[in-house]
Amino acid sequence: MASETANLSGTAENPSVDLSLFTFTRVLNEDPHAKTIAILGTYPSSSHQSALHATDTAGPSSASESQAILIMNKTHFDSASIDEYVRSDIGEVKVLGINDIYNWLLGWTKSSTEAPRGADVKMTLIRDATEVHIRKYSRQKMIMVHETPELYRSVVVPWVDAIPPERIQWVHNILEGKTSETILSATPTHVLLPDLKWDQSTLSSLYLVAIIRDHTLRSIRNLRKPHAAMLKEVRADARRVAKETWGVDPGQLRMYFHYVPSYYHLHIHVTALTLSMGGMSVGQAHLLDDVISLLELDPDDGPGIMQRRTLTYVLGEQHGLYEGMTSAQGNPEVVS
Amino acid sequence: MASETANLSGTAENPSVDLSLFTFTRVLNEDPHAKTIAILGTYPSSSHQSALHATDTAGPSSASESQAILIMNKTHFDSASIDEYVRSDIGEVKVLGINDIYNWLLGWTKSSTEAPRGADVKMTLIRDATEVHIRKYSRQKMIMVHETPELYRSVVVPWVDAIPPERIQWVHNILEGKTSETILSATPTHVLLPDLKWDQSTLSSLYLVAIIRDHTLRSIRNLRKPHAAMLKEVRADARRVAKETWGVDPGQLRMYFHYVPSYYHLHIHVTALTLSMGGMSVGQAHLLDDVISLLELDPDDGPGIMQRRTLTYVLGEQHGLYEGMTSAQGNPEVVS
Repeated sequence: MASETANLSGTAENPSVDLSLFTFTRVLNEDPHAKTIAILGTYPSSSHQSALHATDTAGPSSASESQAILIMNKTHFDSASIDEYVRSDIGEVKVLGINDIYNWLLGWTKSSTEAPRGADVKMTLIRDATEVHIRKYSRQKMIMVHETPELYRSVVVPWVDAIPPERIQWVHNILEGKTSETILSATPTHVLLPDLKWDQSTLSSLYLVAIIRDHTLRSIRNLRKPHAAMLKEVRADARRVAKETWGVDPGQLRMYFHYVPSYYHLHIHVTALTLSMGGMSVGQAHLLDDVISLLELDPDDGPGIMQRRTLTYVLGEQHGLYEGMTSAQGNPEVVS
Repeated sequence: MASETANLSGTAENPSVDLSLFTFTRVLNEDPHAKTIAILGTYPSSSHQSALHATDTAGPSSASESQAILIMNKTHFDSASIDEYVRSDIGEVKVLGINDIYNWLLGWTKSSTEAPRGADVKMTLIRDATEVHIRKYSRQKMIMVHETPELYRSVVVPWVDAIPPERIQWVHNILEGKTSETILSATPTHVLLPDLKWDQSTLSSLYLVAIIRDHTLRSIRNLRKPHAAMLKEVRADARRVAKETWGVDPGQLRMYFHYVPSYYHLHIHVTALTLSMGGMSVGQAHLLDDVISLLELDPDDGPGIMQRRTLTYVLGEQHGLYEGMTSAQGNPEVVS
């Protein structure tokens, strides 16, 4: 942006901007995650020449209108005055739901207008919060770590082996059809289902998950050249289901693995390209297409790229691997 | 979240939540991009037993206080009533700067409280907007495309060759020291400087860029095994500068290439791990560490992984490669 070089001399001639002169045409774009919207409208022209011209031909009452774009972005909370914001700026609270210690709320700041309007904030109030809750919602120290093949063998595999099998019993239940969840597709290679985070109707936030049947595949570290064909089958099936069920074209899908994954049974995230959220950053997500392409470059046997490469990722200090990875790397800050 | 299964029977006993009973302790976490903040405080306990107990021992006026967490998230604009929001909800506008057709503004919604408070929205008003402006701020159709080595040769290389050399004259000016920009480091391999998007003081949004001197390297497609050593030198230098100048540890940095890049002269983005923004998604960003690791698996000569792999990325329909890539792929929706 050119704000650093703003010519403020214009301020004298245009001491104020009057938004009531902005006439709405249409929304150009919006980003609900960042709370940004760009709208097209008309506004009196800033050109003196055309303003003069308009005066000549149509009299002083007709200002020259031209197209204008207004980009609006909600401001962030001011953490220095957040106490006051909660106690006195929010004038009205509506309870959406209460379950045990969890309270879901909508809040309105005190307004001088009578007209009904949407809430200003969504809130969750957790009463009787324990240290576990506090840790969950506190900023974690994050660090980039480098998992070499050696660290995978010496740190990650033992850690994964020690995870109680009950933790992924829910995955086995899904694969064995023992749950009441919606199953979109069940093939010899995988089961495809909607992710619980998706409302199953908003196409722009489409979110499916494909769980691979092969129990020996825990993460992308286990993938080798022979798995490329299986992954292509999963990809083709997810594309078919998205198209047939919701009319979403293959080019509108983003498919990726997480590494490190949240659970160690191979699965693929299938999301709409329009979905903007965490979890798809480099250093956490690996495109299915990229993984397939790299597997195809592998030799026919022996360890492949996924076994031989160093994988770099972000770990939070609350993650179970944090201690092991950072201490095995010595001083993680100077590791190369 | 458990909102789907919220036990609303609680509402009868707790018909309202009174935020004036929330006593602020401290901020636990916040995300300025998503406009979310989590704060710790105290609030009357939800437990009947402890409330009863408090009444028994300390009289009815002493409610039992316990720790509580309040998570607040600004709501998005309601596009259905955005016209009304602009024309009547915003009661006060402050002009931050005006330069030609660009107006930078802060806006406050109409409030019934007299106390001074932070703005509710940041705005940019572009007057006399042209079709180019409108296109720039409109939602683009985005698509995932697959750049095979063959498509790289037949579509991308000719397109890059046709870009007028003047477009990256600014890069050459930086490399040759012909600009007044702050140079953090200049070595035989690269020049390191702060990105223009960074204010050069907020550590959580640290953003540097390393421009590689070798003019033959246009993108990661040109990288081969012998370049790994050079990339490690750049990485070490960026880590050293971030540590010596701002005290930022190596594990707090995220370094990545863009593919496709915004300009075809090899450069590396160096950002704080805490920086949350676009441009670091899988399918657009490639971690420097991952690229180095893959290069090291290359054979000593002949085409390497970066030449042989298929690169999958998101293209907007306004991008110069969109036509070429989508038509070369035939129907891009069914490409595998």
